[in-house]
Formats: sequence, structure tokens, C-alpha cells
Amino acid sequence: MTVRSALILALTFACAGIVRAQSWQPPPANQRCPSRWGAADPRGSANHMNPAAVLRAARLIRTGEVFELAHVLSPSMPFFGTRRFDLHTKRTFMNPQANHRGSNEELVISEIGHVGTQFDGFAHQTIGTSLYNCLALDEVATRNGFTKLGVENVGTLMARGVLIDVARLKQVDVLPDAYEITAADLQQALTRQNLALQPGDAVLVRTGWSTFWEKDNARYVKSNPGIGIGAAQWLASQNPMLVGSDNWSVEVAPNPDANLSLPVHQVMLVVHGIHLLENLKLEVLAAAPVQEFALVVQPLKIAGGTGSTVAPVAIR
Amino acid sequence: MTVRSALILALTFACAGIVRAQSWQPPPANQRCPSRWGAADPRGSANHMNPAAVLRAARLIRTGEVFELAHVLSPSMPFFGTRRFDLHTKRTFMNPQANHRGSNEELVISEIGHVGTQFDGFAHQTIGTSLYNCLALDEVATRNGFTKLGVENVGTLMARGVLIDVARLKQVDVLPDAYEITAADLQQALTRQNLALQPGDAVLVRTGWSTFWEKDNARYVKSNPGIGIGAAQWLASQNPMLVGSDNWSVEVAPNPDANLSLPVHQVMLVVHGIHLLENLKLEVLAAAPVQEFALVVQPLKIAGGTGSTVAPVAIR
Amino acid sequence: MTVRSALILALTFACAGIVRAQSWQPPPANQRCPSRWGAADPRGSANHMNPAAVLRAARLIRTGEVFELAHVLSPSMPFFGTRRFDLHTKRTFMNPQANHRGSNEELVISEIGHVGTQFDGFAHQTIGTSLYNCLALDEVATRNGFTKLGVENVGTLMARGVLIDVARLKQVDVLPDAYEITAADLQQALTRQNLALQPGDAVLVRTGWSTFWEKDNARYVKSNPGIGIGAAQWLASQNPMLVGSDNWSVEVAPNPDANLSLPVHQVMLVVHGIHLLENLKLEVLAAAPVQEFALVVQPLKIAGGTGSTVAPVAIR
Amino acid sequence: MTVRSALILALTFACAGIVRAQSWQPPPANQRCPSRWGAADPRGSANHMNPAAVLRAARLIRTGEVFELAHVLSPSMPFFGTRRFDLHTKRTFMNPQANHRGSNEELVISEIGHVGTQFDGFAHQTIGTSLYNCLALDEVATRNGFTKLGVENVGTLMARGVLIDVARLKQVDVLPDAYEITAADLQQALTRQNLALQPGDAVLVRTGWSTFWEKDNARYVKSNPGIGIGAAQWLASQNPMLVGSDNWSVEVAPNPDANLSLPVHQVMLVVHGIHLLENLKLEVLAAAPVQEFALVVQPLKIAGGTGSTVAPVAIR
Repeated sequence: MTVRSALILALTFACAGIVRAQSWQPPPANQRCPSRWGAADPRGSANHMNPAAVLRAARLIRTGEVFELAHVLSPSMPFFGTRRFDLHTKRTFMNPQANHRGSNEELVISEIGHVGTQFDGFAHQTIGTSLYNCLALDEVATRNGFTKLGVENVGTLMARGVLIDVARLKQVDVLPDAYEITAADLQQALTRQNLALQPGDAVLVRTGWSTFWEKDNARYVKSNPGIGIGAAQWLASQNPMLVGSDNWSVEVAPNPDANLSLPVHQVMLVVHGIHLLENLKLEVLAAAPVQEFALVVQPLKIAGGTGSTVAPVAIR
Repeated sequence: MTVRSALILALTFACAGIVRAQSWQPPPANQRCPSRWGAADPRGSANHMNPAAVLRAARLIRTGEVFELAHVLSPSMPFFGTRRFDLHTKRTFMNPQANHRGSNEELVISEIGHVGTQFDGFAHQTIGTSLYNCLALDEVATRNGFTKLGVENVGTLMARGVLIDVARLKQVDVLPDAYEITAADLQQALTRQNLALQPGDAVLVRTGWSTFWEKDNARYVKSNPGIGIGAAQWLASQNPMLVGSDNWSVEVAPNPDANLSLPVHQVMLVVHGIHLLENLKLEVLAAAPVQEFALVVQPLKIAGGTGSTVAPVAIR
Repeated sequence: MTVRSALILALTFACAGIVRAQSWQPPPANQRCPSRWGAADPRGSANHMNPAAVLRAARLIRTGEVFELAHVLSPSMPFFGTRRFDLHTKRTFMNPQANHRGSNEELVISEIGHVGTQFDGFAHQTIGTSLYNCLALDEVATRNGFTKLGVENVGTLMARGVLIDVARLKQVDVLPDAYEITAADLQQALTRQNLALQPGDAVLVRTGWSTFWEKDNARYVKSNPGIGIGAAQWLASQNPMLVGSDNWSVEVAPNPDANLSLPVHQVMLVVHGIHLLENLKLEVLAAAPVQEFALVVQPLKIAGGTGSTVAPVAIR
Repeated sequence: MTVRSALILALTFACAGIVRAQSWQPPPANQRCPSRWGAADPRGSANHMNPAAVLRAARLIRTGEVFELAHVLSPSMPFFGTRRFDLHTKRTFMNPQANHRGSNEELVISEIGHVGTQFDGFAHQTIGTSLYNCLALDEVATRNGFTKLGVENVGTLMARGVLIDVARLKQVDVLPDAYEITAADLQQALTRQNLALQPGDAVLVRTGWSTFWEKDNARYVKSNPGIGIGAAQWLASQNPMLVGSDNWSVEVAPNPDANLSLPVHQVMLVVHGIHLLENLKLEVLAAAPVQEFALVVQPLKIAGGTGSTVAPVAIR
């Protein structure tokens, strides 16, 4: 398989070489592997999760107020592509014993890693047939999950959370439909908010896009404002634990360069090993406002999973 | 529907009246409704979740150590009845653009509310056709979820966590297969551990049963040691935020009284509105040992759901 | 359970008695049970399936031409309510042996009994809590199928098929959106076609509605022309093996009497035990024209199922 | 993609060339493409289905007796690998109108193309990345079905059916667990039965293996007696419409040559384009005995599907 994969990869980049117009090209393997966390590392930015990070976050808990950042999971959510979330309540099971205990449960059918407010693991995205730390797709993908990089390895993340309110910076409720947030936008917003990023932060970027959630699903999924490649590279250089946003792709979509399909997903997940958090509800933080907080998120331990729907909170 | 439900309920208790041998009977509606939280209350013990509870828990975070209390979700877990957890990796989708972005995701099919380490909502259990706060089953159950009491209303719970280590008290690795933990057991363990319960606590009872998880699944689901009705009633009187254990039913199963089917589920969820947390991994807490901690659990916001698989942690 | 069911049933008809305006009422149990096929009979009109019926049909095979009467099963079909048909191709499994055998298969998730061209079994419909031959719902329904009346008992049906072309009679391509076909319409069409029904026939009624299949799904499912109660009762009196049509409900929908929800389903399936065949493609028969033929349909043997998607043919 | 596929294929056969011990090798593309039915043909042996074949079969219907050849579909069937058949009865939906129409349906989750008695389409199997008529896997496979060779194109097959009773020939109830049926076995059985194959026949080979269905599922799926490569090649030379058997793979499994994984699947589906019919019930035909009959099978029209569960019959 290694030979085959190498061949495909070689072919992939041979083909890629022909296309010259595009504004960004995925870095070749030797420029991105091993990752900053080592050649065998599966955790990427989750390596920031340690007692010091927890204590740093816990110290930000001053009033005990909790802000729920997750949407409700239901069939009426906006979905990307053919994804769905179907819940089938089973018939009530009445146990035969004298205490008349009826039991209810439901069957759920869903691309559970990638619906609702959700967390991206590293098996989610590739550059050609290569994953984070240059793992080969065919060597780790099975019909029933990935043998490496599965989301079950992440665990609870607790970090200093920082809201970068770009919509507020631009003095709008919602950024334009395909607005590319630049590194300068992020830096100006931080300056305005009098905050600085620290390594290991959970960085949440507000665009206002969640306003359309279940209000105008067609618009919600058609495009979204978000960070561009420049902003992503600057964020990656800040060494965060995760980057999230109140839209479906974190990054601007479609990319201004029509030759690129969601390149920030590759920048973050494949090149730098930084987790993404999508479809957040951030309006409540903006309204408070709460811009520095403890962020807590608990991805499900889905064996071999590429992501997880989650229900994160900000606590101050 | 109300008339029909009332009739069924009347009939239910008429039938129940005939059975005299059983050691416990579900209290009639007028003895359990309204609940202590009010007639219209849907949150039960989750009402304890407030800034004070969060601060009380946060103050227990001293070293920043995090203990993962959840099992990995996979088809090899022990399952109750016909429940399952199936994950189907989709074919990699290769986007047509020049950056060769491949995308992976998976379809999950599961009784996601009740597999793995999981959290019980109030729609999960009934006494006859009556739920928590005497809501009528047929008035709130639909083919696609419950219109009231759905688990989407719970949100993140953060509380002072207390481990009651009954296995340690009894000086065994694992309690016997159908050992009924009594109120006295709990009290003695607390005394030995020099701890006292407080209202709003997340109480975790260790039996050692998780030792069999994926080691001997048949034994794991056949029975389990756990709290009996007496212990449950005593715990309920302590007014906790939730009660959890390292077994599949929290309570002893089968119940020593063969006329009763998991009566503690009714005591907790239907009568008192106290959430349950099942299939925890507690060995790591016992080994540390960590007996007082911040417990954080984030149930998924499944619209109309009766429960949620979760990945809770203890932080100290 | 019997007592409970009886009570519900009594209540059901007590309630029904209050409503006087409606044009039809489901007959009480003593007027419809036992069925014409006997009190314990589970097969209803499928009792017509016997060697004589097969020979009668086989004799109509003269040219060997086969007409496919089923639509293709796909996610783009019109669906009723929340039903769906989802197909997920699995990743190709490459076996390790030297012959490089790759294997493909797909997971299908669907209300398979009631999507596409489909066959209704008797567990599909009730009058209150009563099924065909007055079987009580709670006594035969489980979480995983029906213990009686399941579609696995039907088997291949082969019968003389008769097309009653009502659209042709009315000289239209498609009957109006909620046109009620009457007994007179059926009789006139048969007279025009110079055909007479015989006991055991498979009677297919053409409305032209299939024209909208996957062309205008919203219109297709919103209503349809079809037989009314009068026509249904006349057809039932002809003692057919099954009744089918090129629409989603065989019967006119919505019913002209707004107090009634698809009453012909009750007339046919619950009262008379006559199978229905829905969402047929009949244009090809009309165009030929082929009005008398061998009808062959093979319901899947779904244990405890309420129906089956099928792919019937007409052969002449 | 063509270049990539060609490369993989080249590589595949380069690797294959190294292995010399194996008793059979998949023929290279230029020796099997175009198929006997033409380079663009998607129907293979189903091309035999025409009016003449139907009439030939219909003439065999003399008594009208119907023999059901399909097992019941249920979770208790033997399954291959991770396949399953799950049926979830939905809660009864009670319509609000006065006629108290309750409606039942079920959700089915299954690899519906390959469970129970089932029919193999040509997208089911590959030689490396090549399908029937050398179609390239990546060019026709999508996440939601195959764009070519889908089972929806097959339609009802009706043919002269011939039972070749090898168990009877060998005077046993069941052939040994991994008995390889040879071409000579088939020829001797036909001679003993005084029958000869004709082009377009539906050939059913009896091994007796169905005796273990739901009686000893572990044994049923572990191996099975069936035709070997020699018998398969001889059968292919007889030009049948389909080949079926009363076991899960038609062919002997495991193959006597441990370097080969179900090679007859490649011989039949990929090389010759001959459909397979698996998991038949043939005991009833053997008992009658019925050895020449009309075989009728109706694969579901699953768009892009690789196979279909079916409920075929033999009629005489």
C-alpha cells in the first residue's frame, strides 16, 4: 500500500504543479512533516491540554456564569451536502414487572461528527491522500473508522477562551456573505478589545452568521464569511488549542480563489494539526459582552471518528 | 387524549393494587406531583446548575489534573438489549479544486442517548404512562422525539463531584454481581472518606463493575451491583444534581425483588427528577485517589431526546 | 392487555359516536370480524393466490413482453411525511488475497415498506387500536415488527391483472388533483375496455398521476386523484387479490370529507383484508395498450413488516 | 482519474505477477474486455431476458404450483461480516380525523443489497479497481451509489429454471463444509436428472447448506460447499441468465487455494457478467422434486445499488 500511496501522491502533486493560477498550494510533505509536535504525534493542538492550561482557564471563572455555545440538534438544522440528523423515537417498552416501568429511547442516524455545533478531528481532511503528519489515507481508513487520528483520542479540552468579535469591529450585525477576514482584522479586533492571544488559547471568531441558523438555512449553508488563508496562517502562528467560529466552515466560503476548496481546513487540520470548532452560537457572548473566559468542550469518544458534534460552553 | 391516558393510568394502578407481594410501589400521582421544583418544572435536579454551583466546583480545581470518565464509543462496547453503535466511514470525497482536498466523515447509527457512558433525561422512564411531574406519555411523545423534557434542555452541568467508593469500603476490586448497595453502605463509605454530601453535588458511586467493560461484555450486561431503593431514597433526600455509577444501571440489577424492574430509575427520574449518569469509568479516580473534584458533563442538545451519550470529566 | 385494549376501543367508538357529520364511519368490530376468510386468517385477499390463479394468469402470457411497473428507488423520489430512502456506498473492501478482489456494498436506510412502488400489508393500518380481523395493536406490535400479519407471510402474488384506465375514460392525461373516482367510473371504464372483473384479479386503476413522479414531487405528494369510498366498496365486492394505482394512496386524497383520513385504507386493509399496491408506473400499459395481463409481484419477506417496496411487472 | 486508475491497475498486476503459486489469476483487461455483450454493455447475462425467454419459462408452468425460494428477512439471519438487517417499528401514528386511522411503518437499516436471499449486481465486485467491462471503480463509484452498473437496471428476470441437485447426486443431505463442486459433478447430476442446460437458463445448484440457516448461523457463514473455478467456467460456457445456490457465496468457500478470495465472484460478475443468486432455499424443490420450472426474480430497483435482497419463486 505504501508504494501505491506514494505513487498517487506523486501523481497528485505532478498534477497540482500544472495549475499555476491558484493563490495557495498545499505544502509538500517534506515542508509539513513531521509536525511541530513530532512525527508520530496524533494530538496536534490538543497537546496544549495540560494542567497548566486547565488552571489558566479555571482562573477566569469569576462569576460562575455559563454561556451555552451549541445549537440544538434536530432535523431542522442547516446541513451541509447530504448530511442529516434523524431521530426516531422507539415505541415505549413496557416492562412486565409490577412497577409498570415504561422505557423510552430513540434511534439516531446522523453524520454525528459533522452536524450541529461540531468539532473537527484530524482524520476529517486530507491533502490528496495524506493526512496530518503525512499519515497515508489507505493505511488508516477502514469501513468503520480510522485506525489513527480518531476523535476518541482528544478528550475534554479546557482552555482560556478568547472571542475575537470581527462583526463588532466592522460595526455590523453580520459580516457580508463571503467576507474574507484578514489577519489585520483579527489583530485590530484584539487591539480594540484590549486582548492578546496566548499559546494554547481557544480562539473564537465572531461573524454574526449564526443569526441565519434555522432562520434561513439555504443562505446559511450557501456561503459564509470567515477567515482567509492569511488569517489562518497568522492564527496558526499564535499556536492555539483550537479555532472556532459561528459559521459552518470557520473559513470564508467559497474561497475568493475559485481554484481552492476550503483551504483553511487543510492549513489547520492537515498542515498544523489545529482543531476547528464550527457552527457555534456566539451572539450571547457578544451581547454580554464576554470576551475572555474558560472554554470547555467535550468531544464524544467516537472510535475512529473524524469529528464530533459537541455542546461547548464559555464560563466566566 | 387526557381522558384516555387517565383511564390507562387508573387501570394501571388498579392492576398494581392486586399485586401485594412487592417491596415497593411507585407512588401515585398525587404523592409525587408537583415535584419539589414546581408543577411545570422540566429541569428537576438540573435546577441546581447555577453560578454558585459552578463557583463551588471551580474552587475544587487546584492542580488542573483532568480525569476522563468516559468509555470509547465503538461497536465492541457492551450493549443493553438491541441497542448498538455502528459507524460507517463514507468513501473519501475528493473535491475537484486544485488543492486536492479530500474529506472524510462517517454515518453513525445508534441509540445515541443510551449507549456508552451516558446521561439519562426525564423522558427516558415512566410509571405506567406518566413521566416526571406527571406529564402524560401520549401528550409529549412523537415519532421524532418528546415535545417536553427533551435532553436538549439540560446543558452543561458543572458541580462538586463526590466519589463514594463502596468497592473500597468493602475491600474488594468489584462488588458481587448483584450486590445491593444500602444507604448504610453509602454513609459508611462517606465517613471513611471523611466527606459529606451537599445539595447540588454530583454523586458518583464506585462498584468496580467497569472492570468488565469490553473484557466480559456478557457478564457486564447480565447484572450489576448498585444502589437499592433504600440507598436511592437516601441519596434523593440529599438533593444531588445527579447520581452516577460505573455500571449500566446505577442501581442493583436485577432488583432483589423480582416483581420490580429497575425501580431506582423510577425513583430518580420519574419521582424525584434526578438525572443519572451510567457506565462511568471510575477506576482512575479510585486509584489516584480523587474523591472530591469538579465534575463537568455536556449532554448533547438532542431535540426531544431521552438521554445522551457523554464524555464527562473530573477535574481537581 | 386485552382489557386495556378493549377499554381503549370502547372509548374510541364512544368518541366516534359523537361525531355525526362524517360521511362514513369505520364499521364496529362485530360488523367486520371475523373476516370473510375466517377469524384466524392472516392472509386476506392473498388467499386467492393458488395454483388455479397462477394458471389463469400464466395463460395470459402470449407474447412474453414484460412491462416494468416500478419506479427506481432513490433519494430523489417523492416521499410521504418523513420517510426517506438513503443509500450509502461503503468504502471498497480490498481483500488481501492475490486475486485482488474488491467488494462493494451499500447501507440502505429507509422506511422500506412504504417508499417507492410499494405493497401494503395488513399491519400497516388500524381502526383505533384494531387491525385486520380485529387483532389488537398492543398484542401484536413490538419495537421490531409485528408478531402477526407481517408482510413476510404474503409471498409472490401472480394473478390476472386488469388495468382500469380511468384517465383514458375521462380523455385526460391526468385526472384532476383530488378527483374522486366513483364506482360508476370504474364500471364505465371496464365497459369501454370490454373487460369484466373476476374474483382474484389484480386490479390496477390508472389516474395518470405518475406523470409527476420526480417531475413535481411537491404536487405528487400533496394530493392525488383516486378511488373514493364508494368505488372501494364496489371493488371489494368484486373480491380481488389486490388493488393498485399509479399514485401514492390508491384512494383520493385528501378525502372529500375532511373528517376522514384515507378511509379507503381502512376499508381495504382493515375491514376487507385486501392488499394495496401504490406508486405504480402505468403509463407504459396505457400506451401499449395492455389491459389484461399476468401481474407478478414479490413482496420482500420482511419479518413483522407492515409493507414492502416492490418491483412488479405486467406480462402479456 | 483515468490516468490514476490505469496506474493503480498496472501496479496491481505488477504485484500480481510476483505471486506465482496461485491456481488462477484474474484475466487481464484485454482478455476480458469487451465482454461478449459488447464494450458498452451494462446488462451482461440479463440480456437473455427477452420475450422468447419469458415464453420458454411460461410454458413450464403446468400445475400452477409456486415454490418460495427466499428466507425471511430478520435480525436472526446469518450475516456475512458486519452486515445486518434491523427493523425498527415506529410508534403508531394516530391521525386526528374522526375515522381513527392509525398508521404503522418501520425503519429498516440494512446492507439491503447483500442480506438474506439476494441477487448480485455487477458493481458488487472488482478485479483490482476494474469492474465488469473494465469500467474503472473511481469513475463510477460515488458516496451514494454507482453511476453505472446499478441494480436498478436489471428488472424482473424470468427464465427456465434448472435445479442441479449435487447433494442428491452425492447421496447426502448436505455436502461437506468446504466441498468444491466440479464441472464433472454438475454434468453427472444433470445426466442423472436427465436434463440439459440451455442458453439463458437460471441454474440453481443445491448443496443442502440452507439446512443450517438460523439453525447454526456460525457454521453457515464460516464456510460453504459450492462450485469451484472449473465448475464456474463450465457454467459460464453454458451462457446462463443467472447462477444461484443455497449457500452464501454460490462458490466453495474458502477456496481450496488459500491465495484466492472468492474467485468465482470475479469469474461470474467481473469477467463474464453473469448474475449470482445467493442464500436460496432449495430443499422444497429437492423434496418435490421439481428440477425444471419457471424461475421468477424481481430485484429491487435500487439506484446505483450493487445488489438486492429478493424473494424469488419457482413455478411449475
